[in-house]
Amino acid sequence: MKALEWMGDSLKILDQTRLPVEVNYRMATTYEEVAEAIEKMEVRGAPAIGAAAAYGYALGAMGYSGEPEGLQSHMEKVQHRLAGTRPTAVNLFWALRRMEDRLRDQHGVKELSEIRKALVGEAESIAEDDRRVNRLIGEHGNTIVTAEASILTHCNAGALATVEYGTALGVIRAAQQAGKKVHVYAGETRPFLQGARLTAFELMNDQIPVTLIADNMAGFLMQQGKIDLVIVGADRIAANGDTANKIGTYSLAVLAHAHGIPFYVAAPTSTIDLKVPGGQDIPIEERHPKELREVFGVQVAPMEVPVYNPAFDVTPSKLITGIITEKGIVSSPYSVNLLKMMVRS
Amino acid sequence: MKALEWMGDSLKILDQTRLPVEVNYRMATTYEEVAEAIEKMEVRGAPAIGAAAAYGYALGAMGYSGEPEGLQSHMEKVQHRLAGTRPTAVNLFWALRRMEDRLRDQHGVKELSEIRKALVGEAESIAEDDRRVNRLIGEHGNTIVTAEASILTHCNAGALATVEYGTALGVIRAAQQAGKKVHVYAGETRPFLQGARLTAFELMNDQIPVTLIADNMAGFLMQQGKIDLVIVGADRIAANGDTANKIGTYSLAVLAHAHGIPFYVAAPTSTIDLKVPGGQDIPIEERHPKELREVFGVQVAPMEVPVYNPAFDVTPSKLITGIITEKGIVSSPYSVNLLKMMVRS
Repeated sequence: MKALEWMGDSLKILDQTRLPVEVNYRMATTYEEVAEAIEKMEVRGAPAIGAAAAYGYALGAMGYSGEPEGLQSHMEKVQHRLAGTRPTAVNLFWALRRMEDRLRDQHGVKELSEIRKALVGEAESIAEDDRRVNRLIGEHGNTIVTAEASILTHCNAGALATVEYGTALGVIRAAQQAGKKVHVYAGETRPFLQGARLTAFELMNDQIPVTLIADNMAGFLMQQGKIDLVIVGADRIAANGDTANKIGTYSLAVLAHAHGIPFYVAAPTSTIDLKVPGGQDIPIEERHPKELREVFGVQVAPMEVPVYNPAFDVTPSKLITGIITEKGIVSSPYSVNLLKMMVRS
Repeated sequence: MKALEWMGDSLKILDQTRLPVEVNYRMATTYEEVAEAIEKMEVRGAPAIGAAAAYGYALGAMGYSGEPEGLQSHMEKVQHRLAGTRPTAVNLFWALRRMEDRLRDQHGVKELSEIRKALVGEAESIAEDDRRVNRLIGEHGNTIVTAEASILTHCNAGALATVEYGTALGVIRAAQQAGKKVHVYAGETRPFLQGARLTAFELMNDQIPVTLIADNMAGFLMQQGKIDLVIVGADRIAANGDTANKIGTYSLAVLAHAHGIPFYVAAPTSTIDLKVPGGQDIPIEERHPKELREVFGVQVAPMEVPVYNPAFDVTPSKLITGIITEKGIVSSPYSVNLLKMMVRS
């Protein structure tokens, strides 16, 4: 089951909003449809959003039938629409920048078909990079997993959040493939329930032992010595290592710290945003109150109750044991080590 | 809206499992019906469970129509059934003990009707005590609330968890009645959503400003300086001050400690169990996996996913700033101070 699949002239998107109960696909043939799928969280997870946006950009070029001179301003509109879908995950902007660079390379090319081909190629390359990068994250991450490990994760940083394999769940997959005995506790991840719906589903499919918990049970598990390790994904990592990830991650980091449990972030380097000095500068998306007042359309709270619904929080780097990337594992001091890694080819 | 109301020959129980969407009542005329209502969490909250069990015990006597000599063994059966409903909240056992003591006082009384009257009287007295005790908890608790306070609470330790007024929410009510400007953040309290369904509803009814959050947002709120104080209820307090309360409470206590935020427990002294030395000796109820796999009957996770679903956790007393009771506020060293308070008349 793939989050995304390029069909030559359209992007097949697995609608993750109803998983695991309903398996629906959206065949996006326009950039607008891709933008909607990202906004509605049919496709979610920072790396998957990046790849989807790249394909959306390519579809934007494929949908253009005007004069070649008008392409640039059309593509700016496409870029603007896709970039406006979600503010926190930086992979979105990173992927769009790669696409813009590719478009710029085509300067002087007269044939629209050739430009389209180049852009589709770049989107394919972004997706292919993500596949490769996730395997490398798994390889590196495997080194910090002990022979038997009970691992807590949050949200879904799995195959469904990427093009394939996953970041945090990629590490867990790699550890299991290396013969280690892993057991995963998946926090259900209110309000959107990515842990209950996606992580539990994904791990069960792969026969990786998983136990579902409510998010508020994490501390109790740690108190009982049931957690050896926490691994989560990331939506944006600042230059100092502060990490924005799904709401609830910060609480887990504080709890892990209080219990002396290692806390790792697994993410591709495309998630690292050196232009953002620290976590306080990462924009945090707030989503609709309905996500708290309802669960799958079923009312669970007074309909008029005021709601605070930030989709992400920021974990300060001092609570992070290490950041697992395709280039290796970075640890404190992050300001120095992240920069070093990023300039390394 | 009352959790419980004695109707002379039956107990009117507000079914809290569907609130606030549906307001249903159960008219319990037998002890078995009361036991079921407790098991199904139609009535919940340690003090309310205690009062309901007391009325259930009285109904047990009212339903007995055999020879007076058989009453004792019948009442043992009643006691056993009611005591077996839920293991963690000690108010249940406390209330049943009061009822048994009252029955013992009737030794030698031949008239069943007289015995029944005594038992109903005792149940009424337990309920009346709870009303009075909650007001006193509110009065004492009010002293620790500043003139403007943003207060985080968990689960529902309100009027719906007691006979009237509430413990944690009683403190908040008292503070507002004293002219203080309070704002409450209510954690939704998965899996049973008592925060979303009951606390939000109760506070809105009383025009106390409330904002609903997912449980995993608490840390992020604290990090932003949005929480001045945490107040929760309790299901059982050990002799050393360790406190069992709704799952998630321990995580909040660790988070509050990490952020230097005062963390208070509000509970009647009937919640204190001096026979239990420490938190590790408090039995923790595990509930059905369905509570995690479904929300109001709607599937939100793979139906076969293994689930860990403890209903309570234990907060060590070192993380508790103070325990607010009807007899005053106790703080560390709890082993000494709780005992002192309990022997004081």
